[in-house]
Amino acid sequence: MNEFELIRTHFQRDPLDPSVVLGVGDDAAIVSQLSDYETVISVDSVVAGRHVPQICPPDGFAARLLGRGLSDLAAMGADPKYVLLSLTLPTFEPGWVDHFADRFHKLCVRFGLDLVGGDTSRGPLSAHITVIGHVPKGSAISRSGLRSGDDLWVFGSDLGGARAYLDVLDGLESNHEVWAERYWRPEPQLVAGLSLRGMASAMIDISDGLCQDLFHLLDNSVGSATVKLQSNLIPFCDDLVDRFGLEKALEYALTGGDDYCLLASIPPGLEVPGCGRRIGMVVKGESARILLDGKPLPSKWQLGWDHSR
Amino acid sequence: MNEFELIRTHFQRDPLDPSVVLGVGDDAAIVSQLSDYETVISVDSVVAGRHVPQICPPDGFAARLLGRGLSDLAAMGADPKYVLLSLTLPTFEPGWVDHFADRFHKLCVRFGLDLVGGDTSRGPLSAHITVIGHVPKGSAISRSGLRSGDDLWVFGSDLGGARAYLDVLDGLESNHEVWAERYWRPEPQLVAGLSLRGMASAMIDISDGLCQDLFHLLDNSVGSATVKLQSNLIPFCDDLVDRFGLEKALEYALTGGDDYCLLASIPPGLEVPGCGRRIGMVVKGESARILLDGKPLPSKWQLGWDHSR
Repeated sequence: MNEFELIRTHFQRDPLDPSVVLGVGDDAAIVSQLSDYETVISVDSVVAGRHVPQICPPDGFAARLLGRGLSDLAAMGADPKYVLLSLTLPTFEPGWVDHFADRFHKLCVRFGLDLVGGDTSRGPLSAHITVIGHVPKGSAISRSGLRSGDDLWVFGSDLGGARAYLDVLDGLESNHEVWAERYWRPEPQLVAGLSLRGMASAMIDISDGLCQDLFHLLDNSVGSATVKLQSNLIPFCDDLVDRFGLEKALEYALTGGDDYCLLASIPPGLEVPGCGRRIGMVVKGESARILLDGKPLPSKWQLGWDHSR
Repeated sequence: MNEFELIRTHFQRDPLDPSVVLGVGDDAAIVSQLSDYETVISVDSVVAGRHVPQICPPDGFAARLLGRGLSDLAAMGADPKYVLLSLTLPTFEPGWVDHFADRFHKLCVRFGLDLVGGDTSRGPLSAHITVIGHVPKGSAISRSGLRSGDDLWVFGSDLGGARAYLDVLDGLESNHEVWAERYWRPEPQLVAGLSLRGMASAMIDISDGLCQDLFHLLDNSVGSATVKLQSNLIPFCDDLVDRFGLEKALEYALTGGDDYCLLASIPPGLEVPGCGRRIGMVVKGESARILLDGKPLPSKWQLGWDHSR
């Protein structure tokens, strides 16, 4: 099967949305966008041997790829519309591609996403997606705007499970379904993202670890600010405290990457959607930018995940 | 230098166009599009060891990447607006990244393109770009619409030079500046593309070889059609005939990939832009779909370049 047949068989589908004027199969796709809306765009990659193990399940590869990309749209409060996929495969294994494409399309249907562009080549396994969404003009939520007085909230799954799963991969822990689920099938918090338009003062998705992503919000705060986190409010993933003890569980929940929850600052007194959990508050800037139960973060914590390492 | 510093230093620039509401540096970019326009989108990749040699010059890598991507917009008659880059680097060599980013930004400025999204990771060298352009509603030129009676034209550089350069890389030929230029710095035919709106009945860019790309136009023709090519009208790249003889030069010009000219069918009697060269005509379908000087294409020709091979 050559490139054209592969694209035709696995990646060409009838568009879901009438805004797709021309889909996969020409030099480029054409989409027609609503006036009074702005376009929100992000690019993400999953490289085998780097973001995921060298050999990995095709459905997990697809789910993590789309989860990661859509989480960026969720963090802007955007509605997903289109996706473009550039896939590099070491060999053409029909079974692997079948399963990958199957999961990819199922998730596209679930999230109302049209695949409008594809590129395939031979090479070390990696996939790169561009996700495109939209928001009513002026209503996107950026990383800028956190200010003292706000509360700090997380939306979506509990924290630290994806990080704990790396210990399973390293053979340090026995298999654990929930952690594997968090790692391979991250759930982009699109509904929560939409519901926070006009409410969150700033928002980011937790991809590099809660504290590291929080630093990005603090870097863009209005005036100097310090965040006070409360350990008793942190929503831990299943069995994290039992297996590792509270101290290590906190480290995993606050510094482990790949949770893909949303982290938002919200002025007090607003009616926050039910899936949100308040984990702390923002005060005027002090010497430390993040305090945990009133103390600076432990210096031995490896803060966050640097994808370029 | 970690991922964030790398992006900040090398890939964050002030937007050129006021339509960029929010550029690189947040979860996603926000752009505001004109009403009465449609958005044109394409994704492309350059994988080292596959599309280019394993070790390759950073400025050539950047120029070929953007040339390849923008050529898809040219082939739709679209105006380029935005680009997103996902870059995978085996190691962080400041000199290499400097040169790559420098050439990338210079070309962005030249083509009026804003870099609105970036992702970097460690891994085998590859780059994936999504290019986004626009056209007044309904004016994009697709691959569908070629019909008998049309003339067949190429726009842009001469043909076969990029293919001949592969012989230089393989050590079969001595260095040749023009061929190297065609390979490393393909010129996307954006101006020609724009000028063909409302004129070309169908268009494609020559990335996989003239004949193979012509088959895509024939696959989407209105009614059955055969293209009659005339070898005396083919614009050969410098020295192709002298070095290889006419027969081999024709093979390179008609089947070699990576020329990134435009191939368009145009009804007769129109005033075609000066940079165009007529290379044949479309007649009612015969048993062969392409005839060269009245004969079927030589069966020994390896037709086109399959990027998934």
